[in-house]
Amino acid sequence: MARTIFITGGARSGKSTLAETMAESLGTPLCYVATGEAGDPEMAARIAAHRTRRGDGWLTIEEPLRLTRTLKNADGRFQAILVDCVTLWLTNLLLALDSPDAALAEAHALARTLPELNTPLFLVSNEVGMGIVPDNPLARAFRDLAGKANQLLAETADEVYVTFSGIPLRLK
Amino acid sequence: MARTIFITGGARSGKSTLAETMAESLGTPLCYVATGEAGDPEMAARIAAHRTRRGDGWLTIEEPLRLTRTLKNADGRFQAILVDCVTLWLTNLLLALDSPDAALAEAHALARTLPELNTPLFLVSNEVGMGIVPDNPLARAFRDLAGKANQLLAETADEVYVTFSGIPLRLK
Amino acid sequence: MARTIFITGGARSGKSTLAETMAESLGTPLCYVATGEAGDPEMAARIAAHRTRRGDGWLTIEEPLRLTRTLKNADGRFQAILVDCVTLWLTNLLLALDSPDAALAEAHALARTLPELNTPLFLVSNEVGMGIVPDNPLARAFRDLAGKANQLLAETADEVYVTFSGIPLRLK
Repeated sequence: MARTIFITGGARSGKSTLAETMAESLGTPLCYVATGEAGDPEMAARIAAHRTRRGDGWLTIEEPLRLTRTLKNADGRFQAILVDCVTLWLTNLLLALDSPDAALAEAHALARTLPELNTPLFLVSNEVGMGIVPDNPLARAFRDLAGKANQLLAETADEVYVTFSGIPLRLK
Repeated sequence: MARTIFITGGARSGKSTLAETMAESLGTPLCYVATGEAGDPEMAARIAAHRTRRGDGWLTIEEPLRLTRTLKNADGRFQAILVDCVTLWLTNLLLALDSPDAALAEAHALARTLPELNTPLFLVSNEVGMGIVPDNPLARAFRDLAGKANQLLAETADEVYVTFSGIPLRLK
Repeated sequence: MARTIFITGGARSGKSTLAETMAESLGTPLCYVATGEAGDPEMAARIAAHRTRRGDGWLTIEEPLRLTRTLKNADGRFQAILVDCVTLWLTNLLLALDSPDAALAEAHALARTLPELNTPLFLVSNEVGMGIVPDNPLARAFRDLAGKANQLLAETADEVYVTFSGIPLRLK
């Protein structure tokens, strides 16, 4: 049974860099599971910037929805797997399934799978609940979903970090 | 003089669960002061889910505004009292009094009362100031009020925790 | 080479008070660099309230844009310099330069200057990335800019703190 490392924090707080640095210390090859889709120019630019930052030694898989299956398929073939990020995956699930409960069920399935994996796994997520309550009902539903999923995954993880201004704080 | 435990964190970050677990370790009967009102179906569902999660041993009091008086009345009759949450109480005060200063004065009155209580008290609050500045002036006024009230209450409390993804971090 | 202390946190979380208290422990005279401009009554009231809170011993300089030059000019003339806040400075830069990249270049220039200063410097910033992704493209650009600048400055700083409900947590 390999370790799961869960890394959360705000936008642009250094979560991805921390996860990449920790994963790279484990050797190569490494697997990067990108859950974002290059649906608009802003996101395409962000994905390209992330990809440029990572050196050789990374294989990138784009998977917006079937994350658990992707992790099972990649398991055992890499020194580490990095998922960036859980929050975009949940957004994709919420839009595709049109049901917070169905999306949360997918997060439960992921959490149950974590202890079965043989490859160290880094899960990058986001803290999205420390602002004002959003006006938009969909944003509120997403915020609740993301918070619940983060709790599930952090509870199952072996190590949990939160980053502020690029500085990680270990919580577990 | 009993202890006051102040618990803050983002939405769905495990604050209520932490407070309930800590309170339940003190025995029964326990008093749950709900400051939210079931004014719309979303809030009614949330309140019902919270109530279902708590086991027997809890008496629930709904009090949107007169929190300090309610705590004085409940004092001495329970093993612990839990208020969930301070932020909704402040929202109710801001809407009822139509004045951030008048609402903050109520938070000052609460802070002054805390050292007089004989029953351990758990105050659940929210961090609401770590997002982008809201466009809406009322939201900005609320954000300022909540931050100031949190400071007052955390300063008076004996223990302070913040939760991230369900993991508590003790600050004091 | 003097120390740089970087203090971040949410709105109304006690960042300014912490910075002022730490600076005042170093003696007088002290220099307060206010990056906010009294452009509207709300901001004017906030600035006046901050100024009233600080005692004698503080010289206030208002500088919305040319922060690095201001710090070089003030260097060596005070027991400590306090900048409140980095986030407003970045907002001013983003509006004046109309380019997140140009604004970030200014943050890089500030970070390069920090090790050259001879006076202890307190930089107050804000965590703005822990809410829901903003709808507004300018707000998203600002959020990214603020996060990247915070990372740069926190990396260069000798001490880093984050505040929650008025309670500081030392990260570095």
